[in-house]
Amino acid sequence: MAACQVSLRVGEIARNQSTALEAIFSAAGAGASVIILPELTPSGYVFESVAEARAAAEPADGPTVTGWAAAAADRGVVVIGGFDELGADGQLYNSAALVDPGGVRAVYRKVHLWDAESDFFTPGTAPPPVVDTAFGRIGMMICYDVEFPEWVRAPALAGADLLAVPTNWPAEPVPPGERPNVVLNVQGAAFANRMFIAAACRVGAERGVTWVGGSLVAGPDGYPLAGPAGPSEPELIIADCDLTRARDKATSARNDPHRDRRPALYG
Amino acid sequence: MAACQVSLRVGEIARNQSTALEAIFSAAGAGASVIILPELTPSGYVFESVAEARAAAEPADGPTVTGWAAAAADRGVVVIGGFDELGADGQLYNSAALVDPGGVRAVYRKVHLWDAESDFFTPGTAPPPVVDTAFGRIGMMICYDVEFPEWVRAPALAGADLLAVPTNWPAEPVPPGERPNVVLNVQGAAFANRMFIAAACRVGAERGVTWVGGSLVAGPDGYPLAGPAGPSEPELIIADCDLTRARDKATSARNDPHRDRRPALYG
Repeated sequence: MAACQVSLRVGEIARNQSTALEAIFSAAGAGASVIILPELTPSGYVFESVAEARAAAEPADGPTVTGWAAAAADRGVVVIGGFDELGADGQLYNSAALVDPGGVRAVYRKVHLWDAESDFFTPGTAPPPVVDTAFGRIGMMICYDVEFPEWVRAPALAGADLLAVPTNWPAEPVPPGERPNVVLNVQGAAFANRMFIAAACRVGAERGVTWVGGSLVAGPDGYPLAGPAGPSEPELIIADCDLTRARDKATSARNDPHRDRRPALYG
Repeated sequence: MAACQVSLRVGEIARNQSTALEAIFSAAGAGASVIILPELTPSGYVFESVAEARAAAEPADGPTVTGWAAAAADRGVVVIGGFDELGADGQLYNSAALVDPGGVRAVYRKVHLWDAESDFFTPGTAPPPVVDTAFGRIGMMICYDVEFPEWVRAPALAGADLLAVPTNWPAEPVPPGERPNVVLNVQGAAFANRMFIAAACRVGAERGVTWVGGSLVAGPDGYPLAGPAGPSEPELIIADCDLTRARDKATSARNDPHRDRRPALYG
């Protein structure tokens, strides 16, 4: 599996598309079967206006996702990446697509919007899909979504082996010697759900915003299998994972954290 | 706030009671106002039989909790600790009490039982209480409970500033350079809920079981304010906390991770 921490630039769509395709081919060349790109990969993130966000948008059958699908078919891989979606309803969504050699398998629209995103995007209303791929069952959500434990639980209970998380984590101060708390949160969520979680963040300062980086692949025990990446350089984070390992939830002779849930008490 | 990582011995109730009282007085002497003890402090954990667990049990108005309440009144502090509870219904519960100078304010019975605990204990059926104390609003749950994100969310949404977690984390292999995943989980849960979480574990090998230790106080941003403690020695983990800081959930100009929840979508 590969989490591609790439450098993006707002508005430079052709460049960002090339960067993403290079990352896909590079990851596939390094042996990755499941390849994750950041949030809003083709468009960049820090829009100055609705007009700019709309000009950068494209439908799920537009050139970016079609390009990912062609690359997925060419290399026999699964790609999950974020893009600025123009919906059939004319609304903009902060979306992610999962493509494999069969084409576009699912599109997810971010439900929990961060900060100024609500100026540009309509929040999604559908749960994260879980797609049965050749390499395992893969769910997806986007950036701030993964900070809602209820939302992470949904694909886990729906049988996801891996949760793929395209993200653009804005940088905040991190105490010396600590991992960023957004990274800790991914590790804790992987542990609590006994599922792989892989997050691909971006780098490249944009209109005063810098990024956490921190791209990682966390195993179902919460420990990183690869990463977290640093805050400023492009990195290809690659881990060798048997995703089906997430199907054995046993944590003791008598415990299984999914079966041990007591939903009748959760109100 | 103090998380008291003490050494306990199964069956040596008088010794364990003394150890706990010494820890309370020591923590209060060091300035702590909220003092957390491990799970099953007076009894120890690794019972060999139901008879042994029953012999070590006492009601919530028994000598252990009464002793904590007297110490709390003497020093003007809040104490949260775990004990082997004999219920009025004759059942045993893996419980925690919160006492302050006013006496026993709440008792919580562990809902998610770990491994052989179900041989000895009846699982609780009530949500974690949140008690308004002189130092802030304090919720509590026990050990494995904190690995259920739905369960942690309940006291957070009920307004807890601090979640106090008496625990006996059994040791498992930890990759070099990593914090134990149970510690990462506490940090991630503090971050996702923007609430303080403090866990007090124990040390002292018991019938072949050793412990994680790892007692810590995590702030609402997920970073440790004190700890995590090591795996084998008693430690007094003390952090200076303004618990009311957990009431400001704002994480950006427009975001509040409690208000940003979308419960209608959580099924």
